Amino acid sequence: MTYCLAVKTHEGIAFASDSRTNAGLDNVNTYSKMHAFTVPGERAFVLLAAGNLGTTQAVVHRLRRDMEDPDAPRSLRTVQYLFDAAEYVGEVSCQVQARRCDTVQHEQVKFDANFILGGQIKGRDHDMVLIYPEGNYITASPANPFLQIGETKYGKPILDRIVSLDSTLEAAARCALVSIDSTMRSNVSVGPPIELAVYAKDSFEIGQRITLEADSGYYLSLREGWSTGIVKAFEELPKLDIQ
Amino acid sequence: MTYCLAVKTHEGIAFASDSRTNAGLDNVNTYSKMHAFTVPGERAFVLLAAGNLGTTQAVVHRLRRDMEDPDAPRSLRTVQYLFDAAEYVGEVSCQVQARRCDTVQHEQVKFDANFILGGQIKGRDHDMVLIYPEGNYITASPANPFLQIGETKYGKPILDRIVSLDSTLEAAARCALVSIDSTMRSNVSVGPPIELAVYAKDSFEIGQRITLEADSGYYLSLREGWSTGIVKAFEELPKLDIQ
Repeated sequence: MTYCLAVKTHEGIAFASDSRTNAGLDNVNTYSKMHAFTVPGERAFVLLAAGNLGTTQAVVHRLRRDMEDPDAPRSLRTVQYLFDAAEYVGEVSCQVQARRCDTVQHEQVKFDANFILGGQIKGRDHDMVLIYPEGNYITASPANPFLQIGETKYGKPILDRIVSLDSTLEAAARCALVSIDSTMRSNVSVGPPIELAVYAKDSFEIGQRITLEADSGYYLSLREGWSTGIVKAFEELPKLDIQ
Repeated sequence: MTYCLAVKTHEGIAFASDSRTNAGLDNVNTYSKMHAFTVPGERAFVLLAAGNLGTTQAVVHRLRRDMEDPDAPRSLRTVQYLFDAAEYVGEVSCQVQARRCDTVQHEQVKFDANFILGGQIKGRDHDMVLIYPEGNYITASPANPFLQIGETKYGKPILDRIVSLDSTLEAAARCALVSIDSTMRSNVSVGPPIELAVYAKDSFEIGQRITLEADSGYYLSLREGWSTGIVKAFEELPKLDIQ
């Protein structure tokens, strides 16, 4: 499993992802699920990927190849709107999924993948989209300015409570980390290191990109602080009047 | 959807459930999912039910009928162990699910149901089991002494962090309410009123049983306190060093 999310604020977009992949319990591995595509000063995207690793790797490979190919009919270098980029990624994803060999029995294998693509093209606002395996896509609602893919439920309550478009980019990034921490605690198929990238509006480059190992100082202090804070919040709740 | 849970501590067991049922988005209703079966001074059980409403109602009806029937070969009145009770409920559930009419097209309808059964029989310890649609069952692990059925993921992180066998029964009940509140906030298919029942060890009766409407004073103060506490815990986290 996987958990990736992006949080949008007026200041920019924070992206976070875990790094665990598993094909069955006896084949657990660590892969980055976060991919940056930039033309410095002109456009910057981050792509987060969840789903079949063969599919997501092939999609990323194709996106990079198209970007380097001056003759490619479309690429992340040439699209003029984020929605065009989403449509392009969705089409590549569908093509990759369709390319599998149908002579093999594979009822149990799923080839689908979900993506989050966020960033900014010069002259447009920064934004982000979730691209489904079928190639269609949605933006986040302004009331809940975050997108999640993979194992999304454990980490959603904290996002529902904390983030808004008015959050600082730092708070959005911190909340994304807490959301991943809650998920890792409840589901072993989501695991460290955590990758974090921050896109500051109108910067047209991926600013900070951090990899947090399970034993990194900041991550430990965040975990510890959150555990302590939650327990304190719980202890301060009004008590039930039961015998 | 539905969310029910039970938390076991050395002092007893707290049971909680939401009350929303839906068969499609245009058929939303309110039903109790919590059912008490007691022989005062001798045994007491609480059954929580999630799944097809036809199945769960038929199972509860059959359990009550057997309990009233002195000639019933087995019933919650006569079983000697909680595991026997679990096996009996599992068998009744399987029989009910098998009884549907196979001449109707029903590919889209699921008839399965999950149950949590907890309580105590005189001479035994208090305990609880989760009964699967297939009729098999499990107890909770001592390290994570809670069981959940229905929409379980949103409300799990708080349980993972707070409850243990050493929790007071009041704290277990309060944490169960917070877990349901988090779920209701993230998923509209789980809704009020919340029902709460508390079984104190060796009491052989269901002590407190409370129904909390969305606008009840205690529930509002719990919600408000939890929201405030979470935001405060988040604000007190160490800040990320990003530009």
